[in-house]
Amino acid sequence: MDASLARMLFAPRSVAIIGASDDPSKTTSRPLQYLRNNGFSGTIYPVNPRSRTVLGERAFASVEDVPEIPDHAFILLPAEAAIDAVIQCGRRGVKVATILASGFSEFGREGQDREARLREAARAHGVRLIGPSSLGIVNLHHSMVLTANAAFAESGLMRGGIFCASQSGSMIGALLSRGKERGIGFASLVSVGGELDLGIGDLCEAGLEDPHVTSFMLFLENLRNAPALRRFAAKAAAAGKPVTALKLGRSAAAAELAVSHTGALSGEDDVADAFLADCGIARVETLDGLIEAAPLLSRLPIRSAGAARPRVAVVTTTGGGAAMVVDQLGIRGIAVEPPDNPTLAAIRATGIDVAAARIVDLTLAGVRYEIMKGALEALLASSKYDLVIAVVGSSSRFQPELAVRPIIDVANKNTPLAAFMVPDAPQALKMLGEAGIPAFRSPEALGDVVASAFRRRPARGEVPATPANRPGGPVLDEMEGYGPLDLLGVSHARAITVGCGTQVVSDKGLLDIRSDQEFAGAARRIVRSVGEKKPDLSVERLLVQEMTAGALGEMLVGYRVDPQAGGMVLLAAGGVMTEIYRDRSLRVAPIDRAAAYEMLDEVKIIEAFRGFRGRPAGDLEALADTLVAVSRMASSGMPVVEFEINPLLVLPTGQGVRAVDVLVRLAPGAEQERP
Amino acid sequence: MDASLARMLFAPRSVAIIGASDDPSKTTSRPLQYLRNNGFSGTIYPVNPRSRTVLGERAFASVEDVPEIPDHAFILLPAEAAIDAVIQCGRRGVKVATILASGFSEFGREGQDREARLREAARAHGVRLIGPSSLGIVNLHHSMVLTANAAFAESGLMRGGIFCASQSGSMIGALLSRGKERGIGFASLVSVGGELDLGIGDLCEAGLEDPHVTSFMLFLENLRNAPALRRFAAKAAAAGKPVTALKLGRSAAAAELAVSHTGALSGEDDVADAFLADCGIARVETLDGLIEAAPLLSRLPIRSAGAARPRVAVVTTTGGGAAMVVDQLGIRGIAVEPPDNPTLAAIRATGIDVAAARIVDLTLAGVRYEIMKGALEALLASSKYDLVIAVVGSSSRFQPELAVRPIIDVANKNTPLAAFMVPDAPQALKMLGEAGIPAFRSPEALGDVVASAFRRRPARGEVPATPANRPGGPVLDEMEGYGPLDLLGVSHARAITVGCGTQVVSDKGLLDIRSDQEFAGAARRIVRSVGEKKPDLSVERLLVQEMTAGALGEMLVGYRVDPQAGGMVLLAAGGVMTEIYRDRSLRVAPIDRAAAYEMLDEVKIIEAFRGFRGRPAGDLEALADTLVAVSRMASSGMPVVEFEINPLLVLPTGQGVRAVDVLVRLAPGAEQERP
Repeated sequence: MDASLARMLFAPRSVAIIGASDDPSKTTSRPLQYLRNNGFSGTIYPVNPRSRTVLGERAFASVEDVPEIPDHAFILLPAEAAIDAVIQCGRRGVKVATILASGFSEFGREGQDREARLREAARAHGVRLIGPSSLGIVNLHHSMVLTANAAFAESGLMRGGIFCASQSGSMIGALLSRGKERGIGFASLVSVGGELDLGIGDLCEAGLEDPHVTSFMLFLENLRNAPALRRFAAKAAAAGKPVTALKLGRSAAAAELAVSHTGALSGEDDVADAFLADCGIARVETLDGLIEAAPLLSRLPIRSAGAARPRVAVVTTTGGGAAMVVDQLGIRGIAVEPPDNPTLAAIRATGIDVAAARIVDLTLAGVRYEIMKGALEALLASSKYDLVIAVVGSSSRFQPELAVRPIIDVANKNTPLAAFMVPDAPQALKMLGEAGIPAFRSPEALGDVVASAFRRRPARGEVPATPANRPGGPVLDEMEGYGPLDLLGVSHARAITVGCGTQVVSDKGLLDIRSDQEFAGAARRIVRSVGEKKPDLSVERLLVQEMTAGALGEMLVGYRVDPQAGGMVLLAAGGVMTEIYRDRSLRVAPIDRAAAYEMLDEVKIIEAFRGFRGRPAGDLEALADTLVAVSRMASSGMPVVEFEINPLLVLPTGQGVRAVDVLVRLAPGAEQERP
Repeated sequence: MDASLARMLFAPRSVAIIGASDDPSKTTSRPLQYLRNNGFSGTIYPVNPRSRTVLGERAFASVEDVPEIPDHAFILLPAEAAIDAVIQCGRRGVKVATILASGFSEFGREGQDREARLREAARAHGVRLIGPSSLGIVNLHHSMVLTANAAFAESGLMRGGIFCASQSGSMIGALLSRGKERGIGFASLVSVGGELDLGIGDLCEAGLEDPHVTSFMLFLENLRNAPALRRFAAKAAAAGKPVTALKLGRSAAAAELAVSHTGALSGEDDVADAFLADCGIARVETLDGLIEAAPLLSRLPIRSAGAARPRVAVVTTTGGGAAMVVDQLGIRGIAVEPPDNPTLAAIRATGIDVAAARIVDLTLAGVRYEIMKGALEALLASSKYDLVIAVVGSSSRFQPELAVRPIIDVANKNTPLAAFMVPDAPQALKMLGEAGIPAFRSPEALGDVVASAFRRRPARGEVPATPANRPGGPVLDEMEGYGPLDLLGVSHARAITVGCGTQVVSDKGLLDIRSDQEFAGAARRIVRSVGEKKPDLSVERLLVQEMTAGALGEMLVGYRVDPQAGGMVLLAAGGVMTEIYRDRSLRVAPIDRAAAYEMLDEVKIIEAFRGFRGRPAGDLEALADTLVAVSRMASSGMPVVEFEINPLLVLPTGQGVRAVDVLVRLAPGAEQERP
């Protein structure tokens, strides 16, 4: 983003507050009060045609009367008046405006019309917009508290390194207060509103210009303006500034059944999940996790697809507390592993005879500085672990200095170190926070953040452009559908179409029908049955397909262009299980083989193809290759927007996989360029 | 429990501290210090043969020298010496002793031997034991802080109504401090240790004698002494004192695959889950939920099996915060439902035009007392809801009196009311807490507690006695196994056994083999094949069974005696899905039809039998009847300890279900009384 635009957004030298109220009890009086209370050093121009002064300050009848061009206008007027104000701002030369009003696209047809006029006004007059429905924008290091959110009335707003962007305006206040309670401060907070023009990605990208910002916190209701979010996330990753997101909508996904063949993939929560991971963004599931994540994310390297499963050590003075941590990690698929023999020997050399168990339990002896320090050093020195977690009991509350000192003294080794305090231990948490050591107040937030951190993948800055997935594109018949499969190199059952009148089929190798007579009889029965059930249809051709013997089971492999996330590749359990168990894995396409194997690991039914209960193993190498091939649809230039092999038969190892039915939908208007 | 024993446990008039140290830095000096610091009014007898005084008080060389019989002895000596101390206590007439030492059953063969000697010493001398490995027992209303847990060194221990019992000794301190931070106080806390004699259920039952106790909080590592826990829970339910439990081990269950036919059911986490629900105990999954649960559990009635799904209303001043609540309830299967038309009209009559949506969003107008109060009253008056939740935004932090007053003023209607504060809002939480209104600090804890509360079932005080499930009992062959099925009235495929030499089988209706010759040939092939593969086996009989046509799918129905929980009935997806998806439901047996239908609802694959994708519906009524019948195994008197129908074929509606294979294992020694 243009640095001058970023400055006008987050560090304006002058702001106009259009619609500022003189009544201090009104919401529209708040921005002026907050700017003054926080000592904003720029110039403020209240605009109010009905009052010569606002809260004792000179007011201007219109933005045209303001003596200089304000860097940023905060428009507090109702929807229709806000559109007019944008036009006036544009005429006056204002480059950036934030709009508080709601009543646009969420307001039915009338609102959509209004939104179109707002968009056109902004475009025509060269004004960049935040909102509508934005509660405002705050930069604490610049004392720029340009918001109508009541949460900013409080004194002592806590400055820090977090840039917070939220699709829910009220949440910026809630996050600010919850951070303060933990001693966690913010650089900027922005309520992005309806993202009509500047999206959450654009605004966060502007935040990258601010050297105070060390991490990003996103509160998302849904995925909008995804390409800008992806671009920002890649830049944040390059700058070493971690991004955490809490996205609503997990429950809708859990309740909803995937309806294959009808496009229900779009807008689903696991699409957002795959998208965020692909952008290197840690998606957390708990509110505490959102607030506490950044220090750990900063220290834990992002893992490539195909890296070994993460391994975590837990060392403790209290078995019960540590067991909660093991449980919370375990339910999220993170294994806590016992130390190997050399590490165990190194721990014992510090003078404590710990048992060879999953948890390194120092018992009460761990309260002694040398014991805890020695155990932590031994674990941090082991090449086995990706993360070491110290779980501290009562001493963290009663002897915080003693409990926390060994943790602080050994941190900043190659292996990251995190801490969980089992009792309420404000002093210990404060010391750890000041030392920059990831520390957690609940085992759930710890498990959540650790799992989200390990789920991140190296951020991709861009993905191939894909045709828009609008309704109405042509659907290829099964025979045509095999065309793209051939182009991608995916094996399918041999098939031919024959005219209905065909009497003789000679290639007995192709057909499992035993004679020409049998084929002719079968064809007649099919035609007759269709005629009875759908009298208005006439059968022109029959698809005749080789039978595939020896399959161990069936899977579903799909590809779809998501309106936000772009091309997505899908692996799912076939048949009834697709919908009932929602047993599936998604990735942003294209993917490599390492990612394909990860997808296999994420689908439970794959266990049935790994020599389950003495059955032969399936050709999972071929299945992974098929995922890679199908994912290349995204970069193939083919005008395909939806593609599903269902079923894909999995044969024994060495015999590959075989598609026996396929659905292909093209982008509207793509009839001419069918693949 | 005997009231006098309860008094000696929790309100002793005199205590002996055996092994009390004179060195104030030693753990064994703590109990005396804590009792004195907290003003314990009873008599304290330090016992220490090596010191005439302990911390300035007169010490006794032995418990025999103590001038009266102490009500309760706290034995702080190492394991072997502790056994001797128990004997001495017994000789002196002491009725209750708490043992700090570890080194018993968890300590290999040597420890098991020691444990046997401890048990015998206690039995022979009539001493009831807490522990071993108990950190002690605390009754704050009695200033009885008889513990070595460092957490009790702090002043201002917060008294209240919670009775806390923990299998982890360190957790009682952590829970105490976390409660204090929230203004939540405790009546008693007990570290139950190894539960060699008095189990967690016995100790909690003693707590029921204390009028200060209003609720129970359990921290469980595993299920031990389950019958006593069940007895206590039923009494607690009758007394209207809710019980919350956090049990570790969810992750092990998630990771572990059910291995049917091998008895892996025992000790699994979902057995504990079913057991706790059957006892009316709310099992929470979050640490915050454990601490915050009681006020909601006290107000939310326990639901019977077969009651309609719970319905929840959410009213808010802040859409983003409320959406988090809806999400957290939704992922736990709790539906937030929009108001019906009369309720909506009643809300609108208060002067706010709310939309007809899932969340009743009052927006900023909800900050006004009359608006929030009116909306809450309308929702509480509706017969539609089981629970109303108020989600309050910034005003809860900045105008707590204003934000909380309408909630307090309308509470205590028939419908329970709970609250979630979106920002950090200590003052509002304090006011709600003092008014006894269930209030939560995180959407996760709220979702957790609400779901756990609705999962409870009316507490069963006892279940039928079942034979002990020890290894080594006889396994019935398939034909014999149909015997119990006939007794229970469960339909199975017709079957006969025939001698190997049988040449003629005449009942063609029974057999799907087309002629006597075909049967003879098939029998010869089987015998030959067995002979080739297992030359040391000889085939004596063949089981010949009717083929069942027309099945829509297969299920697994099982019964098993769990060593702790007793008879359990199981419904699971059949085939590969049993193990891979762990798609199953468990109940303590016997069950009624309403519970059987609930089990059906909990197994995902049942969806496939409800007319899924145009397929015919399965006979779920017959499946429910089968569950009820199999669950009656528990009260049948049959010496069966494990029983599994796998598969049970599900036929179309009206045609029933049919068992086609069964495994039956009897209790050891039950050969003589085969059913």
